[in-house]
Amino acid sequence: MKRLGLIFALIATPLWAETPCCATGDLGLVVERASGSLLVIDRSDRAAVGRVEGLGDISHASLTYSPDERYAYVFGRDGGLTKVDMLTRQVVARTVQAGNSIGGAISDDGRLVAVSNYEPGGVKVFDADTLALVADVPATGKTIGLVDVPGRRFAWTVWDTGEVFLGDFSGVEPVIRPLGNAGLNPFDAVLTEDAHTYLIGLFGEKGVTAFDLWDENPKPRKFLQDYGKTADDLPVYKMPHLQGWAFTEGQYVLPAVGAHELLWVDRDSLQETARTPVHGQPVFIIAQPASPFVWVNFAMPLNDVVQVVDSRTHQVVKTLTPGKAVLHMEFAPRGAEVWISSRDDNKLVIYDTRSFAVLGEVAAQSPSGIFFTARAHRTGL
Amino acid sequence: MKRLGLIFALIATPLWAETPCCATGDLGLVVERASGSLLVIDRSDRAAVGRVEGLGDISHASLTYSPDERYAYVFGRDGGLTKVDMLTRQVVARTVQAGNSIGGAISDDGRLVAVSNYEPGGVKVFDADTLALVADVPATGKTIGLVDVPGRRFAWTVWDTGEVFLGDFSGVEPVIRPLGNAGLNPFDAVLTEDAHTYLIGLFGEKGVTAFDLWDENPKPRKFLQDYGKTADDLPVYKMPHLQGWAFTEGQYVLPAVGAHELLWVDRDSLQETARTPVHGQPVFIIAQPASPFVWVNFAMPLNDVVQVVDSRTHQVVKTLTPGKAVLHMEFAPRGAEVWISSRDDNKLVIYDTRSFAVLGEVAAQSPSGIFFTARAHRTGL
Repeated sequence: MKRLGLIFALIATPLWAETPCCATGDLGLVVERASGSLLVIDRSDRAAVGRVEGLGDISHASLTYSPDERYAYVFGRDGGLTKVDMLTRQVVARTVQAGNSIGGAISDDGRLVAVSNYEPGGVKVFDADTLALVADVPATGKTIGLVDVPGRRFAWTVWDTGEVFLGDFSGVEPVIRPLGNAGLNPFDAVLTEDAHTYLIGLFGEKGVTAFDLWDENPKPRKFLQDYGKTADDLPVYKMPHLQGWAFTEGQYVLPAVGAHELLWVDRDSLQETARTPVHGQPVFIIAQPASPFVWVNFAMPLNDVVQVVDSRTHQVVKTLTPGKAVLHMEFAPRGAEVWISSRDDNKLVIYDTRSFAVLGEVAAQSPSGIFFTARAHRTGL
Repeated sequence: MKRLGLIFALIATPLWAETPCCATGDLGLVVERASGSLLVIDRSDRAAVGRVEGLGDISHASLTYSPDERYAYVFGRDGGLTKVDMLTRQVVARTVQAGNSIGGAISDDGRLVAVSNYEPGGVKVFDADTLALVADVPATGKTIGLVDVPGRRFAWTVWDTGEVFLGDFSGVEPVIRPLGNAGLNPFDAVLTEDAHTYLIGLFGEKGVTAFDLWDENPKPRKFLQDYGKTADDLPVYKMPHLQGWAFTEGQYVLPAVGAHELLWVDRDSLQETARTPVHGQPVFIIAQPASPFVWVNFAMPLNDVVQVVDSRTHQVVKTLTPGKAVLHMEFAPRGAEVWISSRDDNKLVIYDTRSFAVLGEVAAQSPSGIFFTARAHRTGL
């Protein structure tokens, strides 16, 4: 009798035991780019707490979170869109929706996930619950710079033609509105966190194009008309990610192209106001929350260094050497610490942002991008 | 045998059943001011999912969250500090730490909770885990305007004397630094989300005092020197909460005192630039995330109305009537919807922020403050 009871209990309990109880506010995912896996990290514990396998080719990948932080949507270079459950640490849905893809976004209400594709070019929109395809918007080229815009909308740009689109998916049918032309070969775009300005970097000509998305009828406005690759085709190790731009009070700061400098731009006038000489070709410039500082990493071969720059003086205030091949940096949402991935040392290094003390390290396999769940609550990611 | 097995299973399972599995990113708490209870809400479900009892006198209360969103710390007017588990919906710790208290804050790293007391005047600091007292900083009067400042620090001000303090609790011993004097009878203060400016409203004289907390040596800077109660003591129904100030791009917007107006102030010059005539005496002005709009509620008797104002034109764009005695408004962190409490209609009303459609209503008992867990990731709350 006892044994049957025990068996009964064992059968009955695993349902609960399989779904661990935990709060999700301090969790994160790290892309392990060589092994198609995601490391699950707990920021408060400063530790890895699990690993998710089966993500396909995530040698280049980004991800976004559902509003409740329960699910991550991973966008892989191979066109894979994978839904991951943060609590069970399992892949719960996956579709290979294109041949080659550059990234994605989730709508402000968490209902739709959009993916930006190179091959075939265009944007596909999926139900965030089921990953069922709800819209397929072909483009006459590779789509880049996909961002979510309030109101269940997305904006994107086309590399081949320079066209910019604002898609409204809040009604029964999608309404796709052309906003104008950004210029020659836009290579990336970013939306300010207040959803005010959609900024598009150009590769085929110099300059950056801005659209005011608070305007009922946004028009392209070109600025920084010296910005970009030079006429004599100096080698550019890495085109800067516009996600590499930082937005500090009253300023934009962006990587110079083919130069070891940060450019500072006044947000109102769109005029360049200063340059900061830095260690190498900047890749990501990320604003430290609740501070005047931005942190910068660099393209190879000078990519074992991170520098901290004061946005008020435009001076470097600190130079750190976290490890070999620093690919990404992610702050705790209130800024007390930063997690830095060192791909070739197979680790994450955690710094105190005020004292620069190393608070800890976490082993990871060829880590690249680090994404905390607090991103669920931010626009334009 | 079967029955014993069933009994065994019933005994074995409740341990897991008691701790529900859920993600915490879309949860929230609503203060039920007449019943000492908190309603637990789920934003994605647009529903109440539980209630927490035993909070004492929370006729006036605020709360803050741990960085993982697991715990809420509730600061009650009666001096109660209560720690609530969002997953079990239980009170897990409680201390009545003063006779009369006005609010509190949690440090950026989530380690310390500070409470601002009237009686006796001063700030007490507690271990966020255990609620053990770690520091007791008496003041020569009532402390107001307590905010968290990056680096495990807190700032506060003293009503009776005008003194402003910055307390650093990151070392072995607290270091309390006087910053200067704000002016006569400061009644409330607020910190901008980038932790740049600590703004203090004065009651004993006209004006507002600002401290630049990015500065190594912050100095008081007085502005808006016409702002405040008038010489002829017009009745002021309710002193505006400085939490009622909103921070939009390049501007502060604050409630006029004793007038039915919003004041707009340029952040750089600290000069007033515009006024918006509104429905009543403004209480809370809250910026709609990812938009140019602010939403405003009003003091009694005109407190059944909410207005929406465009920060670019300074014009009212919408007037809504959610219900009787609108006490608070809280946005989904990315701005798609707003939840509004109607105390006297015993309900929360949920609006789509773009169409102004009512998306739902949730019954609540005399609701006042609404607090979503995404606040865990914001500075100065």
